[in-house]
Amino acid sequence: MTDTYPIRPEAAAAPTSGIVDTVNYGRTREGLIPLWVGEGDLATPAFIAEAATRALAAGETFYTYQRGIPELRAAIAKRQSALLGKDLSPERFFVTTGGMHAVQIAMRLVAGTGDEVIVPTPAWPNFRGALTASGAGIVEVAMTPSDTGFALDLARLEAAIGPRTKAIVINSPANPTGWTATREELAAILEIARARDLWIVSDEIYQRFVWEERVAVGGRAASFHDVMREGDRVLFVQTLSKNYAMTGWRVGWLEASPELGQTIENLVQYSSSGSPVFVQRAAIAALEHGEGFVAHQIARARRGREIVSQALAPLNAVRFAPPPGAFYAFFGVPGADSRALARRLVDEANVGLAPGSAFGSGGEDGMRLCFARKDEDLVAAMGRLVPVLRG
Amino acid sequence: MTDTYPIRPEAAAAPTSGIVDTVNYGRTREGLIPLWVGEGDLATPAFIAEAATRALAAGETFYTYQRGIPELRAAIAKRQSALLGKDLSPERFFVTTGGMHAVQIAMRLVAGTGDEVIVPTPAWPNFRGALTASGAGIVEVAMTPSDTGFALDLARLEAAIGPRTKAIVINSPANPTGWTATREELAAILEIARARDLWIVSDEIYQRFVWEERVAVGGRAASFHDVMREGDRVLFVQTLSKNYAMTGWRVGWLEASPELGQTIENLVQYSSSGSPVFVQRAAIAALEHGEGFVAHQIARARRGREIVSQALAPLNAVRFAPPPGAFYAFFGVPGADSRALARRLVDEANVGLAPGSAFGSGGEDGMRLCFARKDEDLVAAMGRLVPVLRG
Repeated sequence: MTDTYPIRPEAAAAPTSGIVDTVNYGRTREGLIPLWVGEGDLATPAFIAEAATRALAAGETFYTYQRGIPELRAAIAKRQSALLGKDLSPERFFVTTGGMHAVQIAMRLVAGTGDEVIVPTPAWPNFRGALTASGAGIVEVAMTPSDTGFALDLARLEAAIGPRTKAIVINSPANPTGWTATREELAAILEIARARDLWIVSDEIYQRFVWEERVAVGGRAASFHDVMREGDRVLFVQTLSKNYAMTGWRVGWLEASPELGQTIENLVQYSSSGSPVFVQRAAIAALEHGEGFVAHQIARARRGREIVSQALAPLNAVRFAPPPGAFYAFFGVPGADSRALARRLVDEANVGLAPGSAFGSGGEDGMRLCFARKDEDLVAAMGRLVPVLRG
Repeated sequence: MTDTYPIRPEAAAAPTSGIVDTVNYGRTREGLIPLWVGEGDLATPAFIAEAATRALAAGETFYTYQRGIPELRAAIAKRQSALLGKDLSPERFFVTTGGMHAVQIAMRLVAGTGDEVIVPTPAWPNFRGALTASGAGIVEVAMTPSDTGFALDLARLEAAIGPRTKAIVINSPANPTGWTATREELAAILEIARARDLWIVSDEIYQRFVWEERVAVGGRAASFHDVMREGDRVLFVQTLSKNYAMTGWRVGWLEASPELGQTIENLVQYSSSGSPVFVQRAAIAALEHGEGFVAHQIARARRGREIVSQALAPLNAVRFAPPPGAFYAFFGVPGADSRALARRLVDEANVGLAPGSAFGSGGEDGMRLCFARKDEDLVAAMGRLVPVLRG
């Protein structure tokens, strides 16, 4: 904000991403191995891109349904119904320009000026960003790091609820910590939300990336869908970015009760005015024919987790446990200033990691490493990182 | 809003589009000629779509710059500099997912809860939508219809300014009325804004569609760029939708002082998280090689304006003047309920028009007709409409 160009305080307060800060520092380093953003190294598979190309050639370049084209809503419902073992109506799904847009709409539905939303941290910084920009306050509940990874203390979560609290954001499996709730934990969180009349905004975008049986349900992470009933106030944000290597496409969805359909349609109208039909055609191809590719992505991330864990586990200077879910290693370097360390790792190891301070309280001495990448890169990166981390 | 799913009042108040209401009424009528939305009948030219296809084939499917790729920002700056006869830096341009996203960010910059924004009406309903969703109030200033078209009374505009006013939205050439400000009117509006410390949000997306010399500057409509100086608080929202038949692509831009760059980048991060690179490649192709197509579009709209004007002008039951700009005819049917009339025109003429009531005060008895369409359709539509309108 300047005197010349006075702007709204919420807009001015929207924080600059602490990840982008490091990326800008190291963007042009030759040979740098970039493990700093939540994105793999594979381009979108050809069968998905070609569906968009065909739609473009067929002239599907006009305005369309704000809620998404019916064929995509049906494809999402079919895929999620199969994954979650439930019969979910297409009327529950609203296509968005990426998971972030779904988060923006979810936050606008549940919180605004004067309200508070609880977010367990370390957390994806865009939750804070979306809340700040909408005028709502964020209440961080720091998770507890331990030898077995991060844990969410439900008593602390409940104690953070105040008279202005409107919602709890739950991201399981979590970016950046890999924390993954058990079915029982989700049930307990939902009970708290019910008792206190709160919304849950559930980000389950990493649900296919789960590494430990104790948090898995039928090969995927436990979901609020496993424990909720009709009338529960749960909004799900989702994306095709991670499963299908479609980060740059900006396509995802918000899942909500159909009762909110007209309001969500209006909020889409007044933000993106809908998603391109040709992008939606690509999304349909991904959902209908992408299971083989998802399996390939999961297998790669599983190997990546092994490579990274075997390199980090022996280090005395590092606090680390292999994550139960998602595709990040979040390790602590006690006493470190993570932003300075991220720059040092760029300088001395030529590897890009995201500084833990970008993820809120509990992350100050941490570093996030994305292991959704080919083996050779990860082996090389760990070979360069370990000597620097060992000190 | 329901008891089961309580949501924020701003979200619940975001209005349902009055255009969509009519579209839903008539969507499935066989043989209906749709002149109700602001969209032509041409698909995106192949040379534009093929640029996206090439980018997809090259694997440009990853996250990218929140402000837009540098090549697109440079192409926008070059095109707008040539059009406006000014040297505009690429640093002024921020790529958005369509003009609507640019409007959303502009509104979040200048107004929120407790603020008011002035909008001359009849106006594109999405201004109201974006303001309502962001918690700001809208103050409508009804324009004056006359035999020579709509006029904006600057004394009434100034009288509408109150202590909570933060901005004035100016859309010239205007959707739906075709009202187009002269250079002198823009200078006078800017003086008012300067004197009262207000922002101007300028929507000049129809600037290439101008039909009268008195409002033209070098073959385009007058622009705030013709009268502003460094430090003036003007935000421009723009889109590639209309010039290049790219409505379904969702690509446009916000133009602002580079001093606001980091804030705009953050607001993009927390809404769309950027636009697909392959869409941006198509936008570059449009800007660099699209002048022939734009000329073709303008020539078509000019003929469309003639066809529609010749049919409407003789009707005593209709208040109408050929519009000086944009590609809509907005005519009044004194005494009519425009929503009921729109449905009647679907039923009796099988032509889809947008009801004037969707555009705010001053539009209650009006109808909007989009003439960016091939001659045959317009001739047929007018042949069916005139008997019904004549009564």
